[in-house]
Amino acid sequence: MTTFAEIAPQLEHQAIEVPSWAYGNSGTRFKVFGTPGTPRTVEEKIADAAAVHRFTGLAPKVALHIPWDLVEDFAALRVYANDLGVELGTINSNTFQDDDYKFGGLTHHDPTIRQKAIDHHLECVEVMGATGSRDLKIWLADGSNYPGQADIRGRQDRLADSLQAIYAQLSGDQRLVLEYKFFEPAFYHTDVPDWGTALAHVQALGENASVCLDTGHHAPGTNIEFIVAQLLRLGKLGSFDFNSRFYADDDLIVGAADPFQLFRILFEVIRGGGYGPDSEVAFMLDQCHNVEKKIPGQIRSVLNVQEMTARALLVDRESLEAAQQEGDVLGAHEIFMDAFYTDVRADLASWREARGLPAHPMQAYAESGHQETIEAERVGGTQVGWGA
Amino acid sequence: MTTFAEIAPQLEHQAIEVPSWAYGNSGTRFKVFGTPGTPRTVEEKIADAAAVHRFTGLAPKVALHIPWDLVEDFAALRVYANDLGVELGTINSNTFQDDDYKFGGLTHHDPTIRQKAIDHHLECVEVMGATGSRDLKIWLADGSNYPGQADIRGRQDRLADSLQAIYAQLSGDQRLVLEYKFFEPAFYHTDVPDWGTALAHVQALGENASVCLDTGHHAPGTNIEFIVAQLLRLGKLGSFDFNSRFYADDDLIVGAADPFQLFRILFEVIRGGGYGPDSEVAFMLDQCHNVEKKIPGQIRSVLNVQEMTARALLVDRESLEAAQQEGDVLGAHEIFMDAFYTDVRADLASWREARGLPAHPMQAYAESGHQETIEAERVGGTQVGWGA
Amino acid sequence: MTTFAEIAPQLEHQAIEVPSWAYGNSGTRFKVFGTPGTPRTVEEKIADAAAVHRFTGLAPKVALHIPWDLVEDFAALRVYANDLGVELGTINSNTFQDDDYKFGGLTHHDPTIRQKAIDHHLECVEVMGATGSRDLKIWLADGSNYPGQADIRGRQDRLADSLQAIYAQLSGDQRLVLEYKFFEPAFYHTDVPDWGTALAHVQALGENASVCLDTGHHAPGTNIEFIVAQLLRLGKLGSFDFNSRFYADDDLIVGAADPFQLFRILFEVIRGGGYGPDSEVAFMLDQCHNVEKKIPGQIRSVLNVQEMTARALLVDRESLEAAQQEGDVLGAHEIFMDAFYTDVRADLASWREARGLPAHPMQAYAESGHQETIEAERVGGTQVGWGA
Amino acid sequence: MTTFAEIAPQLEHQAIEVPSWAYGNSGTRFKVFGTPGTPRTVEEKIADAAAVHRFTGLAPKVALHIPWDLVEDFAALRVYANDLGVELGTINSNTFQDDDYKFGGLTHHDPTIRQKAIDHHLECVEVMGATGSRDLKIWLADGSNYPGQADIRGRQDRLADSLQAIYAQLSGDQRLVLEYKFFEPAFYHTDVPDWGTALAHVQALGENASVCLDTGHHAPGTNIEFIVAQLLRLGKLGSFDFNSRFYADDDLIVGAADPFQLFRILFEVIRGGGYGPDSEVAFMLDQCHNVEKKIPGQIRSVLNVQEMTARALLVDRESLEAAQQEGDVLGAHEIFMDAFYTDVRADLASWREARGLPAHPMQAYAESGHQETIEAERVGGTQVGWGA
Repeated sequence: MTTFAEIAPQLEHQAIEVPSWAYGNSGTRFKVFGTPGTPRTVEEKIADAAAVHRFTGLAPKVALHIPWDLVEDFAALRVYANDLGVELGTINSNTFQDDDYKFGGLTHHDPTIRQKAIDHHLECVEVMGATGSRDLKIWLADGSNYPGQADIRGRQDRLADSLQAIYAQLSGDQRLVLEYKFFEPAFYHTDVPDWGTALAHVQALGENASVCLDTGHHAPGTNIEFIVAQLLRLGKLGSFDFNSRFYADDDLIVGAADPFQLFRILFEVIRGGGYGPDSEVAFMLDQCHNVEKKIPGQIRSVLNVQEMTARALLVDRESLEAAQQEGDVLGAHEIFMDAFYTDVRADLASWREARGLPAHPMQAYAESGHQETIEAERVGGTQVGWGA
Repeated sequence: MTTFAEIAPQLEHQAIEVPSWAYGNSGTRFKVFGTPGTPRTVEEKIADAAAVHRFTGLAPKVALHIPWDLVEDFAALRVYANDLGVELGTINSNTFQDDDYKFGGLTHHDPTIRQKAIDHHLECVEVMGATGSRDLKIWLADGSNYPGQADIRGRQDRLADSLQAIYAQLSGDQRLVLEYKFFEPAFYHTDVPDWGTALAHVQALGENASVCLDTGHHAPGTNIEFIVAQLLRLGKLGSFDFNSRFYADDDLIVGAADPFQLFRILFEVIRGGGYGPDSEVAFMLDQCHNVEKKIPGQIRSVLNVQEMTARALLVDRESLEAAQQEGDVLGAHEIFMDAFYTDVRADLASWREARGLPAHPMQAYAESGHQETIEAERVGGTQVGWGA
Repeated sequence: MTTFAEIAPQLEHQAIEVPSWAYGNSGTRFKVFGTPGTPRTVEEKIADAAAVHRFTGLAPKVALHIPWDLVEDFAALRVYANDLGVELGTINSNTFQDDDYKFGGLTHHDPTIRQKAIDHHLECVEVMGATGSRDLKIWLADGSNYPGQADIRGRQDRLADSLQAIYAQLSGDQRLVLEYKFFEPAFYHTDVPDWGTALAHVQALGENASVCLDTGHHAPGTNIEFIVAQLLRLGKLGSFDFNSRFYADDDLIVGAADPFQLFRILFEVIRGGGYGPDSEVAFMLDQCHNVEKKIPGQIRSVLNVQEMTARALLVDRESLEAAQQEGDVLGAHEIFMDAFYTDVRADLASWREARGLPAHPMQAYAESGHQETIEAERVGGTQVGWGA
Repeated sequence: MTTFAEIAPQLEHQAIEVPSWAYGNSGTRFKVFGTPGTPRTVEEKIADAAAVHRFTGLAPKVALHIPWDLVEDFAALRVYANDLGVELGTINSNTFQDDDYKFGGLTHHDPTIRQKAIDHHLECVEVMGATGSRDLKIWLADGSNYPGQADIRGRQDRLADSLQAIYAQLSGDQRLVLEYKFFEPAFYHTDVPDWGTALAHVQALGENASVCLDTGHHAPGTNIEFIVAQLLRLGKLGSFDFNSRFYADDDLIVGAADPFQLFRILFEVIRGGGYGPDSEVAFMLDQCHNVEKKIPGQIRSVLNVQEMTARALLVDRESLEAAQQEGDVLGAHEIFMDAFYTDVRADLASWREARGLPAHPMQAYAESGHQETIEAERVGGTQVGWGA
């Protein structure tokens, strides 16, 4: 079996973007609960993201959401972030919170609204120039609620046109990353419901377009690690939105609902060349915590990814392959499980300490007084949330 | 085959409660779209419900939601409703929109908050006295998002105690109806997730407690008509919340996602004695429409129930039973499908006309100018929605 | 609204291949029930298929399964079929009933077994020459039961190679049609689990390769008509395997579990150019009936497709498009549902009679004495079933 | 945190019945693969079960399936088993492999067949007398494939009568344990599809009737540990059938598909009083392995239960309860996960050695030569499988 010492060097490469919207209030359609200490400004969101990085060393970038994070001077925001030790990352567009988009954005039957949605993305591309972001991530809320309501096929054609118009404005290393989602907020049909649809569109666009896999966006029973392996094989896995879910798109802490699934996903990532300095796959969280504290919720999340990456790196791939070649079902399964069941937490604590990080980030955060400080300081103003 | 004329008399018994909250704005966690003409007051909601009844003859009662529909003078509200031709119906409690209920209400670990939730229900019972409502319907948002977060078992015991305290305050014909829901807003565990749990609790309470079956609250693949048959058999089916869903609890127009399922459900209702003057099963809609107009959305919904009831009544049950007894799979299935495939719409149009109702309620509503009137009149004020 | 008379001419184009294996005994892993009259030979299977066509005019072709339907002289079998009024259709390969295929066929890690699987397909291509079949349909049972058991990624590469070797042997108009399936018989991972994977492989092969969509092979909640529309848009929908399911791959009578879904699928087929004389999409049944009589089960199935095709043709597409353009959700949905709810059965009965077919094929079959004849005649010998 | 030493004494109580049918050939409806060394007789099955116990100390009982395991002299079989160090356990009835049961057994519309099914169970009760078994476990394959095929409601009433007739024949400590299953082999409706139905029936029977929970028999997304907690609370959890599944009832090695779910289930078992010397909950495997070797597959399975039981015992319940009371979501979750992530394997190896058991049972079995011996010896005769 592989040892922790052998895999430790590979842990240096781990970097997980955290989303600016993770620190605002979020909830369900039934209720959004407010909590003390919630940011009121983009700057406070970035400060929270920087805290996650400070305690873990794992989250060097903050993903932004436009228009939620629109500021007049993105160059200044970039300096602000850098001063706190983080960079601005992926730009996420939003065509689901304007009344005009009731029946879609990039797929809309009305050319005026469709153009408005395209223009919003062009604005995002401009922001990318100012922030130095590489990726424009597009998630569509487009779809319909009733059979007959919409022209499913025509919407695909319009989507292809819209994406083409946006893609044409990218320059240099910039990438368009298209996210798919099984359902919600549309119930009957979703315009990019599965990886096959996302793939068909990014293949039509070209080399700098790829697919974003959100781990919460699949039908029950879907083998997600298979999709990971397939997209890597096809050279079209652009990024991950990590989170976990029990039933729908619950946006819980990654690894919380099914830790073994996260292990299997990371194993295919590593095995397929999606991890490490030579990979261009971006790792992000996309989580909206409803009842837990936000900053430690994000700390827990990046730690979960790190712990599971360590376990996945521990798989003795040579022995595994030998067992597979022999058709030794139980032997191969056991080699695989051996890594999953190995408790890497003590080794990781030492590894962190050796790098000047807290051995136990959750505990260190709790003892740091940071939470109490922001709860005391952030009084007055309007707490941010989805849409604010 | 049974004819429409033979079943027509049974259509007289149909009455479907419409919810007051169907007319306010609703949406998903991503966005609530506003629409012109949305009610600003409880009275305007009741007026909308009355319009549904006026055009269909099917919706003589309005279900209320407390505190959304709290008024100072329920007696006056009752007169107001009666003047518009409708009655006040089921009272629905709400323990999910107050910050105190973040970790539950009737199941809460803190006795103070649990008592607050109980007291809210006692207030609902008082309202029932004033409105003349028979049923107190309890749907719990209680649950947890993470394994370990909550004491699943202890919460059941507390729930049993809380329900007992509420049940003890009912008088006369008043009933407690407990609704179950598979998931949402809690993601990991829900305190009343299935009909078995609801049954266990209402059995412990007594004769005037029963189960509410919401057609959208089940795991994928669940045979809902089986549950209908079982609850009727056990004498514990109290009411229906009708709606439809493709994946989660979409709250779409009943019958829209799977008309054949609605047919099968209504067949078991009729066959099990749940329909007609001798039945105490209450039929309600529980729908929240996001992108369609509210009043015609409700008209379409009650018509769907009526059309499908007519089809279910058309099943030639004698022939069906004979085929079943012979093990004639295809014959029995065909007798069943024959009723489903029969187009009852023209017969129903005539039947309506004979009763002084519009033959085509959807068209009549569109041509009535009612929608234009409320859109013009309801300007200013705050549109109601979930939580308002 | 469109009338039956207007759409009647389009009904002439309908042709649905029936599978030879539909007439043998089949069942579940728990039990296969035998029934009197079950065929003992390929010829008797074809005779049963011919009976379906004789009573319906809808099933002019029989799909064969190799090696189940291997005969020495396929030219003679072709003549035999033609004499009974039907043609031999799609050739289906089988790499799941030989001990060598325990860990896969076209994906196997052992080159010897992989070559054996390729050779089996080359034999199928030879059969196609003799039978005049256009399509080679490949469904793989390949996959694994345990995480770690197999090299998911390597199997994709081997599959691509194997398919290339087979594709290279096609000639003229011959096509390779690749079927995907969500799960079963493998439980953890399936090598072609979704349309995206099938698409990636057939795109790599070339113009004469396309995807087979089996309506029972999806995760719960999947919008199948969306996939139909997408594959037609991409020019890669090769064929349908029709059946229906409640939960897994139940292989029930098409349209039995969710008639409205079949309607929506056929609407997208028609709208996307997949129906009619200019389309190359092949329509097949893939059903294995366990408890009902086989021949009338197939008759019921092709009638279901016909009835639902008629309804889908009835959709007033001009009005529908207008309502969609206006964002009239309820109006568009109603136009769509209007066609679904129209009872076409009487019109179809007349239409059949005008063509010399029985007005009521199910009844005509029951009264024909055919079932009694085969039950009396087919005594002795071994009834065919899966694998025989 | 609790230590292994503290929980070690509780591990002594663990006993898991293994099923006699686990050692025969099994498969899917597509194919049953044969393997060398498969038992040909009941005695050889028991010998295999005894091997599992010899290597693990965890499997002191063998569950039998009637009529698969019918012998003339059960007293002799009991002695045979005892001599090998195991006892005969639960008796499982079978009403799904006789042609008469095509449309059901205990629910059948034909009184003759229904009586035959009842009589079969009475025969099982007689066997229990001879074997000294406590439990009669009843799993019904009864159901229907098509809407309309069967009288769902009437079948419930007949089932209640049949169970009553069987229950009346139990004596002393004998128990009737009723198993539920979501679907398969029936597809449209299953007569005991959920725990609510099983509960309703066993409540009607009396104190010696309880529910069997098979971990693979639920709809996707079902929270199984909730059901465990609820049944324990209601005093009606009779036994477990352990296995795991990814989608349907895959009958894989318990804990293989979702180890964390097994942990959560065992935590609720322990917390609810279902584990230990005072509990009457029976733990069984119900697995049918298709591609792996049978004996080591069972060894792996009982070890998985043991390892996960150890982890569940390690949960620091006092701290957990304190965190829950404080509404500390992340804290409570972390306490819970801490136990799950603890690697207990080395401690368990020492614990086994101290009891004269092999430290590493899988390895010990592989090195023992037992597999090679049975493969060499068991030549000729007919291998047993489902139904043999």
